[in-house]
Amino acid sequence: MSERIIGSWVSGADGSPYGVTNLPYGVFRHDGREPRIGVRIADQVLDLAGAEEAGLVLAAGALRRPTLNDFMALGRPQWTSVRQRIVELLTDTAHRAAVQPLLVPLGEVELLLPFDVADYVDFYSSEHHASNVGQIFRPGQPPLLPNWKHLPIGYHGRAGTVVVSGAPIVRPTGQRATPQGPIFGPSVRLDIEAEVGFVVGVPSPLGDRVAAVDFADHVFGVVLVNDWSARDIQAWEYQPLGPFLGKSFATSVSAWVTPLDALTDAFVPAPEQDPPVQDYLRDTPHLGLDLRMAVEWNGERVAEPPFATMYWTPAQQLAHLTVNGASLRTGDLYASGTVSGPERGQVGSFLELTWGGTEPVKVGGGETRTFLEDGDTVTIRATAPGPDGTTIALGEVTGRILPAR
Amino acid sequence: MSERIIGSWVSGADGSPYGVTNLPYGVFRHDGREPRIGVRIADQVLDLAGAEEAGLVLAAGALRRPTLNDFMALGRPQWTSVRQRIVELLTDTAHRAAVQPLLVPLGEVELLLPFDVADYVDFYSSEHHASNVGQIFRPGQPPLLPNWKHLPIGYHGRAGTVVVSGAPIVRPTGQRATPQGPIFGPSVRLDIEAEVGFVVGVPSPLGDRVAAVDFADHVFGVVLVNDWSARDIQAWEYQPLGPFLGKSFATSVSAWVTPLDALTDAFVPAPEQDPPVQDYLRDTPHLGLDLRMAVEWNGERVAEPPFATMYWTPAQQLAHLTVNGASLRTGDLYASGTVSGPERGQVGSFLELTWGGTEPVKVGGGETRTFLEDGDTVTIRATAPGPDGTTIALGEVTGRILPAR
Repeated sequence: MSERIIGSWVSGADGSPYGVTNLPYGVFRHDGREPRIGVRIADQVLDLAGAEEAGLVLAAGALRRPTLNDFMALGRPQWTSVRQRIVELLTDTAHRAAVQPLLVPLGEVELLLPFDVADYVDFYSSEHHASNVGQIFRPGQPPLLPNWKHLPIGYHGRAGTVVVSGAPIVRPTGQRATPQGPIFGPSVRLDIEAEVGFVVGVPSPLGDRVAAVDFADHVFGVVLVNDWSARDIQAWEYQPLGPFLGKSFATSVSAWVTPLDALTDAFVPAPEQDPPVQDYLRDTPHLGLDLRMAVEWNGERVAEPPFATMYWTPAQQLAHLTVNGASLRTGDLYASGTVSGPERGQVGSFLELTWGGTEPVKVGGGETRTFLEDGDTVTIRATAPGPDGTTIALGEVTGRILPAR
Repeated sequence: MSERIIGSWVSGADGSPYGVTNLPYGVFRHDGREPRIGVRIADQVLDLAGAEEAGLVLAAGALRRPTLNDFMALGRPQWTSVRQRIVELLTDTAHRAAVQPLLVPLGEVELLLPFDVADYVDFYSSEHHASNVGQIFRPGQPPLLPNWKHLPIGYHGRAGTVVVSGAPIVRPTGQRATPQGPIFGPSVRLDIEAEVGFVVGVPSPLGDRVAAVDFADHVFGVVLVNDWSARDIQAWEYQPLGPFLGKSFATSVSAWVTPLDALTDAFVPAPEQDPPVQDYLRDTPHLGLDLRMAVEWNGERVAEPPFATMYWTPAQQLAHLTVNGASLRTGDLYASGTVSGPERGQVGSFLELTWGGTEPVKVGGGETRTFLEDGDTVTIRATAPGPDGTTIALGEVTGRILPAR
């Protein structure tokens, strides 16, 4: 399926990476009013709650809610028909008089967490990232553990500390190991993980599996994720039950959820898998997403992780997540794991970028860094191929480090 | 604080382990109506929604909701005053005429999940359990990892698959390792973990810590937990990010939440900790709970785990969970980890009871087992000291294994 590019009557939309072929969803606050669902077009937000109130779009009231959850629960046919209707509203000048008053400049709104997060799962699906981490922490040993190519390794994170892009990140405090024994204090190895998150709309019953082929029936869209990580806390705590406080202080997501319908032209063949995977993990066709990510550290672009290099696909991750009968809920978020390509300039964590903190890098303001300092800002961006050679942008995810309390 | 035993006018209440010094909260359905909050007294349920509608008890409408969450969010002064009022209603015969019609026989109700679970954390706080697991999986090595006595090890589980006692458990399917490589199929090492769960009522802001001393201001009450575990799936998947599908298929909790106010006489000194813990983990006084648990396998009592032997206390777990600034939400559930005492007959998992599946045990019906078979039922019970030498019961948690789908 490919969408034809149609001119929009909205000023600045044509040629914008947020044109009518993109249309990500979010939740905004304007003029001190209650949170409302909106869709981004160029540098404006179309108030979808207002559009539904005016009868311009119909979604069973789901657009008049303070989060996207009810809308995401409706399912793909409704997602697609609402999107088609929004495109009509923004391209057919017959609707201009009715719709124009519902456009709010982006600069006048506060963007909120777009959905209530049900469960948050974080995978570990980049072969380059897993290999780099293995080499840094277990030099001289095989970089990948024996299970890594047989299943998408993942774990549950803390849903309650998922925050929207722009929320400040308080440096976490905790225990870390030293040669003299564990000590307590603010983390001194605060890091990022640049990831892509998949947001579940349609739930599944407990005890059933979701097949990889049903990915697009359950997953509504995509967010960018920064899985902030305190490497020193994580290293001391993680044996044998995995990451806990080293991650649970905050996870940032973009304010905009890009619907899968906007990414039709971004699906590309994923890397071949060897050894062959179990039947339940076979996705035919085996497709990843050609998202080109960028990591900015105090304004300096320090890495460009290529999402298309991910070993495990989002459809495989969904099939794995539910193969034991675990149910899905609307608002479940599962993230890809750190996205790292084969080159040093393509890694999605500073652990890798500075090779375990041994090789400082140049960041904005002419400074150098190994890990994050108080006041630092990290922004993760991404673009994807749109129809007919165009490019769409995913909403960025940004955050600034505040000192430990 | 100790409550004086007062006779109740409710038939069977005096001398019952569910007398007026207990009064656990739950959510029930009766006569096909909407879910309602109730409190258990003897073998009856007092309809608290009806009591609040009738003006017999006041809780800002929080008792007229389909889950306990709004009531749990009110805080300790309100929890205590509502409890005191319920005791009045059930002991003062002046209230009998008004209250009697609000009592429903337990046998006529369906008990539902009593609260919406926000985040679910599982700790690993029994020294005997951690040592047993270490000996079984890493024979000849130190049974405890170096971090174990410095912090309460824990991880996040799947909140969306927490189910109420009585819900059937479908045997999970997944990958497990064999000498010939990983294979796919139903788990063949399905196990339990007998635990105690703590339910958070009052939330905390992101970026702040909750001190151990503030435990009772945030934690509303206690449930029994069975953290069903597929040992074969877990063993293959858990390196390096911890348990995932081996646990996420289901976690059962008791239908009754025992308020902390009912456990005043159950607090006892916890085991001394050596080495000394970091300041943020010091709870003074250092108290555990004298809950005497029992595990029944097809009706046969196979173990009696003593909760008072836990190395880390629930107040320490709460302080640790939030020391990195992670926020609490109403409905957060954190479980103790498997409760095992020093004796074989005191362990909270079948992995330990059968020593890694090498020593079968006798269960109900004259059969023997190593791990769970389809059709097996496991019930976990517990009692606690009440005032003046009485005993109160915690709500049991039970589940039966259905074949894999």
